[in-house]
Amino acid sequence: MDQIQHSDQSTKLMSLIEELYPINRSITGDGVRKSLAILKQHVPLEIHEIPTGTKVLDWEVPKEWNVREAWVKNSKGEKIIDFSVSNLHLLNYSVPVHKEVDLSELKKHLFTLPDHPTWIPYRTSYYNENWGFCLAHNDYVKLKEDRYEVFIDSELSNGHLTYGEFYHPGESEEEFLFVTHICHPSLANDNLTGMSVAAQLGALLNTKSTRYSYRILFLPVTIGAITWLSLNEDRLDRIKFGLVLSLLGDKGPFHYKKSRRGDALIDTIVETYFQNSDVESELLEFSPYGYDERQFCSPGFNLPVGRLTRALHGEFPEYHTSADDLTFIDQKKLIESFEVISAIITMAENDRTFLNTNPKGEPQLGRRGLFKQIGGQHNTKEFQMALLWVLNLSDGENSLVDIAKKSGLDFYIINMATQALLAVNLLREVELIK
Amino acid sequence: MDQIQHSDQSTKLMSLIEELYPINRSITGDGVRKSLAILKQHVPLEIHEIPTGTKVLDWEVPKEWNVREAWVKNSKGEKIIDFSVSNLHLLNYSVPVHKEVDLSELKKHLFTLPDHPTWIPYRTSYYNENWGFCLAHNDYVKLKEDRYEVFIDSELSNGHLTYGEFYHPGESEEEFLFVTHICHPSLANDNLTGMSVAAQLGALLNTKSTRYSYRILFLPVTIGAITWLSLNEDRLDRIKFGLVLSLLGDKGPFHYKKSRRGDALIDTIVETYFQNSDVESELLEFSPYGYDERQFCSPGFNLPVGRLTRALHGEFPEYHTSADDLTFIDQKKLIESFEVISAIITMAENDRTFLNTNPKGEPQLGRRGLFKQIGGQHNTKEFQMALLWVLNLSDGENSLVDIAKKSGLDFYIINMATQALLAVNLLREVELIK
Amino acid sequence: MDQIQHSDQSTKLMSLIEELYPINRSITGDGVRKSLAILKQHVPLEIHEIPTGTKVLDWEVPKEWNVREAWVKNSKGEKIIDFSVSNLHLLNYSVPVHKEVDLSELKKHLFTLPDHPTWIPYRTSYYNENWGFCLAHNDYVKLKEDRYEVFIDSELSNGHLTYGEFYHPGESEEEFLFVTHICHPSLANDNLTGMSVAAQLGALLNTKSTRYSYRILFLPVTIGAITWLSLNEDRLDRIKFGLVLSLLGDKGPFHYKKSRRGDALIDTIVETYFQNSDVESELLEFSPYGYDERQFCSPGFNLPVGRLTRALHGEFPEYHTSADDLTFIDQKKLIESFEVISAIITMAENDRTFLNTNPKGEPQLGRRGLFKQIGGQHNTKEFQMALLWVLNLSDGENSLVDIAKKSGLDFYIINMATQALLAVNLLREVELIK
Repeated sequence: MDQIQHSDQSTKLMSLIEELYPINRSITGDGVRKSLAILKQHVPLEIHEIPTGTKVLDWEVPKEWNVREAWVKNSKGEKIIDFSVSNLHLLNYSVPVHKEVDLSELKKHLFTLPDHPTWIPYRTSYYNENWGFCLAHNDYVKLKEDRYEVFIDSELSNGHLTYGEFYHPGESEEEFLFVTHICHPSLANDNLTGMSVAAQLGALLNTKSTRYSYRILFLPVTIGAITWLSLNEDRLDRIKFGLVLSLLGDKGPFHYKKSRRGDALIDTIVETYFQNSDVESELLEFSPYGYDERQFCSPGFNLPVGRLTRALHGEFPEYHTSADDLTFIDQKKLIESFEVISAIITMAENDRTFLNTNPKGEPQLGRRGLFKQIGGQHNTKEFQMALLWVLNLSDGENSLVDIAKKSGLDFYIINMATQALLAVNLLREVELIK
Repeated sequence: MDQIQHSDQSTKLMSLIEELYPINRSITGDGVRKSLAILKQHVPLEIHEIPTGTKVLDWEVPKEWNVREAWVKNSKGEKIIDFSVSNLHLLNYSVPVHKEVDLSELKKHLFTLPDHPTWIPYRTSYYNENWGFCLAHNDYVKLKEDRYEVFIDSELSNGHLTYGEFYHPGESEEEFLFVTHICHPSLANDNLTGMSVAAQLGALLNTKSTRYSYRILFLPVTIGAITWLSLNEDRLDRIKFGLVLSLLGDKGPFHYKKSRRGDALIDTIVETYFQNSDVESELLEFSPYGYDERQFCSPGFNLPVGRLTRALHGEFPEYHTSADDLTFIDQKKLIESFEVISAIITMAENDRTFLNTNPKGEPQLGRRGLFKQIGGQHNTKEFQMALLWVLNLSDGENSLVDIAKKSGLDFYIINMATQALLAVNLLREVELIK
Repeated sequence: MDQIQHSDQSTKLMSLIEELYPINRSITGDGVRKSLAILKQHVPLEIHEIPTGTKVLDWEVPKEWNVREAWVKNSKGEKIIDFSVSNLHLLNYSVPVHKEVDLSELKKHLFTLPDHPTWIPYRTSYYNENWGFCLAHNDYVKLKEDRYEVFIDSELSNGHLTYGEFYHPGESEEEFLFVTHICHPSLANDNLTGMSVAAQLGALLNTKSTRYSYRILFLPVTIGAITWLSLNEDRLDRIKFGLVLSLLGDKGPFHYKKSRRGDALIDTIVETYFQNSDVESELLEFSPYGYDERQFCSPGFNLPVGRLTRALHGEFPEYHTSADDLTFIDQKKLIESFEVISAIITMAENDRTFLNTNPKGEPQLGRRGLFKQIGGQHNTKEFQMALLWVLNLSDGENSLVDIAKKSGLDFYIINMATQALLAVNLLREVELIK
């Protein structure tokens, strides 16, 4: 894959998010199925259905959850909270209930954000059976003593956990794994940006011949990753690079969280990309708290999987609230995220190790037409420097990513210089014994 | 030793300093014996008497020094300098003398501090026979031409070097060594704070069952450490941790000077403790100048012995002057020093290495009652994070101190999380082959 | 070589620069021969003549270039540009030409510096046959439409590449290599300062008995280094230290560029020297762009050769212009450069590794006359500290340069302490098996 074309991606990325936004998703259920069906229109996906009760590592697949209707009425019969208005109003995984309660009993099941009184919070109770509603604090404080009718027409029963998987075979069975979670209802940055970017990446990869194979997992968080790991344990050694993706549409700088190994090739690639780029970013050491890197980087797997986001989960006020809506997404930043990930893929695809075939002294570049006389875009000081760096460090110990890192030069120019040097036989590829 | 109780320690620490303060100490003599006898009322000590002339490594035990009386009288018979007023007035290890001298001869034997004209300096001449007096510079400048009678009724003769040793056997013969010097006369921060803190630590350890054995040495500086090392050379491999203690009562931040090894476990423990604590501190690389770490860290021993002080010797104006008196001690800082050392002991005692018994993916903590549902003090975000860190890093490569270092979490909470995980069989201890 | 005397060096250094300044040099030709003949009056040099066409690594020795006369006349017959006024006026390696041209044709062959309109630039065209003149931009803008007579009486023909080599045998065949380029015409800082400092170093070394052998190469840049490497490939393993020298007379701080290895002994020596000295300096990582370190540090040789300059080539406005003239040299800085290099040589010569013969505890220095009682220059706190550092780190793992680096003490005082400790048998040298 030489270069990825990005035209029209911005529109595609945003419209997919808009289409997925209204759907009520959870870690299981029809909302997930509907979302995957939409994604499948853009990227070939295999949909997996794993039955409730299946043992997966230390866990088991939970009951499937679906909701038809959910509301609270006051004694006048007015719906004062209604799931059909916003799916955030319902505590995710609420058990079915139909009863009359007084205000004090009702309040035990209500969740609000006093600091942001117009926003609805997003709350879940996956593994602890409960019911509840989320609402704006301004509406909460208006509630009066009354008899309230609570109706949640949900179903929590044996069914399936559903996830989608894209696979693109490359020359090598070694693979680049992307993971994005798909379990949040109407929240945009977390996690529709991850779903949309991952889907468009898949669509693009699907049209390319690649060196590595590519796998993209669209999973419910935690239990989805655990399920996939459990079902694929014998194939994990194929994972050469991995990135957990989410939170890719806000205005903040990128945050790359290193894999548990800390010095995996994906860590070096992303670190080098940001070091040599103008894009604002911050590097984070691994910690065991976060998204699904927790599972991929558990000590028994310890896979080379990092995490790329812009904002950090839990560290921006709109996180897990109704304010993480479509207006929260900055379309320019969204396409930039797509482009950064494409550039990272380009680095992975093109990272090879060469030997300078003329290692004693500098070869005479002028005689080979590589010294300044060339016109056009090659004729830059950066290109001359890239030639010198590639020649000097191509001793079998440094791959092109290492050379980009040490030189501070853009990988693109390092790669161009490499092609030019290969063309005049000043480099040959090192066959690494694996 | 699970936890050390600190009640009433503050009063005990200070009253012991007050009791020891007036005694005239030196590297040998009855002042040392008297001081050790007082300490022995608080902590079981073995008192060692090593005869003058004993060969100890490259040195030999010097003559014992004792003083009965020492003064200078003017021609009117008035005592203008008197050892009985302050033992700092006499040059420590002054030889006996009784003669009449004129002012210019007298001045050759007087020491003052022109920059601090009201303070008496503390001076010694252990290995170069001499006599002299120290006095306030304000008094020195008032001295007139006169005939002065100098009388030093001291004795420098064959006797003993005296030191005290506390030993507390633990489960293991491996030991934690504390060293404090005891040779300074009426100086409070240097070195009575070290003596008092070490004595109270010994008193406390004496009531506890411990994993490691503990040894506390109360020694005259340099020659005491050399003597002890010489007599115990065949047992030095038992020393697993060591700290030289002094200067623990001033208002300054802590200074930890690393062992010569630089990466001994004691270095990691103290570094991690301070990293994760609010207590102000500074870390110093090893240098061959200082207190008795010079001897323990000489290249032929190279023991894992660091040094913990607040102020740095020689780097505060009151150092080795009469201004280092009882009023110089800040009682809150003194007890804080005691607590910091206790916390370091707790880390050493509890540092073990575990294996996560469920290393693939995260174990389901909720099912085991470890996820939020618990009330009380466990139910904190820090505790949840500690559970994740301990699980993620318990791969046999990281001890609990390493996990505290990498997570930035207090060792106490790491240890609590470890206990909780052990209780549900999610950890098992690694049996290290030694 | 215990110490290098520097008296009168300043005058010698400057007068040699003045003598060499007017000569027209290039990468070949009589100017180089004349310059080497002058240098030979100060330092014994072997002059090598390598024929045009000789294959040297990937290159071949070019034709030799000589110029008798070169000028441009206007239609009145006035010389408006004249090589005899400044040799910078002629594009270096210009081919012979004699023709009439109009202004627009002439301008294709003129080079100026619009930003510094009174300076003449220095330009070359070694490997691309061309002719041209360089002039002040102020003179360029005055040129009118006219017919101009261009005359370049140069010769580009089979001949030789000429270089000079100084060799001083020491006790060991292992050598310290200095390299300076000699191919620039009337430019002072670049590169006459390098030639003069290197010649005076050779003159001084020639009078000394040294531990290492010393080689100084006076070479045309790039092709000279490639030629020498090609002819001496079987002897390169003798090079234990190397420094490329140039730009040693400006007012800027020193810049040391590390060898490609990054941790060669020469790197440690220079880094330690500057760390412990008041001389302003900056350390640069290796990069493959620069002077002849490019050749010595190509991956097939990877020799321990760093580069020492003050200014950085290309990074000061006077670089490669007529403003880099004799007035640009600061004589105090020039002699300082000579002294710094001498000090580096002293460190290399005296760097040895010792064992403390009394490694357990500190030896009693007082008994051996090494503790303060000594008068004179030894009696300093620094000397006492140096004694402790040398004793503590002489465990066979640290050489004296390592001890200087870790202690932060001047190498001179470390060396003095070592001599004092050797005199009382507290050290013995480690015989390293090679």
